[in-house]
Amino acid sequence: MTRTTFFTATTLDGYIADEHDSLEWLFVQDVREDGPMSYASFIQGIGAMAMGATTYAWIGDHLRKTGEAWMYDIPCWVFTHREFEPYGEGITFTSAPVAEVHAEMVAAAGGRDLWMVGGGDLAAQFADAGLLDELLVSIAPVTLGAGRPLFPRPYDLELTELAQNGSFVCARYDVVGPRA
Amino acid sequence: MTRTTFFTATTLDGYIADEHDSLEWLFVQDVREDGPMSYASFIQGIGAMAMGATTYAWIGDHLRKTGEAWMYDIPCWVFTHREFEPYGEGITFTSAPVAEVHAEMVAAAGGRDLWMVGGGDLAAQFADAGLLDELLVSIAPVTLGAGRPLFPRPYDLELTELAQNGSFVCARYDVVGPRA
Repeated sequence: MTRTTFFTATTLDGYIADEHDSLEWLFVQDVREDGPMSYASFIQGIGAMAMGATTYAWIGDHLRKTGEAWMYDIPCWVFTHREFEPYGEGITFTSAPVAEVHAEMVAAAGGRDLWMVGGGDLAAQFADAGLLDELLVSIAPVTLGAGRPLFPRPYDLELTELAQNGSFVCARYDVVGPRA
Repeated sequence: MTRTTFFTATTLDGYIADEHDSLEWLFVQDVREDGPMSYASFIQGIGAMAMGATTYAWIGDHLRKTGEAWMYDIPCWVFTHREFEPYGEGITFTSAPVAEVHAEMVAAAGGRDLWMVGGGDLAAQFADAGLLDELLVSIAPVTLGAGRPLFPRPYDLELTELAQNGSFVCARYDVVGPRA
């Protein structure tokens, strides 16, 4: 059974980026890629990924600034109404309903799981369609006071795994459902 | 050396109460009072407490609804510009600067530590005055998407303790300082 996981870093006060979409607060943290609940261990089980336009645009800026190449070798769906260039292989731009895209992702993933990259609103749209199984959050020891919200909906979750990795609290939650 | 700790529950997305100041999401959670980082263990080391007017008003509503009595036997400072009745013994209403009140609290605490009850803005005012040492947060497995913010300022923290208690992630952080 394919699982769909919103794997993301967040601040302690629930922001996945600051008001200017910066992740400067994130890159200064300590993390062990061979530690528990790391990106390196997570990505091994993933067969397809999806993100929103703001996240994709942020990656584009990052690639331009650093000269790095697109870093994913799995198919990626980008939900957007904007025009973008593909920054790598296997990128599909879509404005189709999330259920339709999710079905395409499952088919493409070859039995592996799906990564909801973000942002929070797209992750919540997946959840609203009953298509988000988990949140796996790496909580940085930072507050921002303002920024892009982690998950802009009232939902009940259930804690299933907890660990410290470097300076992060890593917590895995099953999505129970929208709060009554 | 007296320590001042902002001990509070929060949602995963960083709210300490919903938009209507309700804690309904909190009281449905599982917690073990004899478990790690519980209120019961925390309060044993506390000699004085401080809260803002909204928190105090919420407690007043709770006492009226439930018929319970004021549940604290340590001196309590309430920062307010509103008129309130005292709901119990040892309550001081103040609009003095936080540094002045903090000094009174230290003197009253008899060598024990101080509890910053909240809300988030008062806790941040203590931090801005260099008078908040720790955050000790119990993170409920809930998102709200909106509500009263945990800590409405950009601050760097350092994780010093982590545990699960019932359905909560309990994390203790030293306050490092405002983010540059």
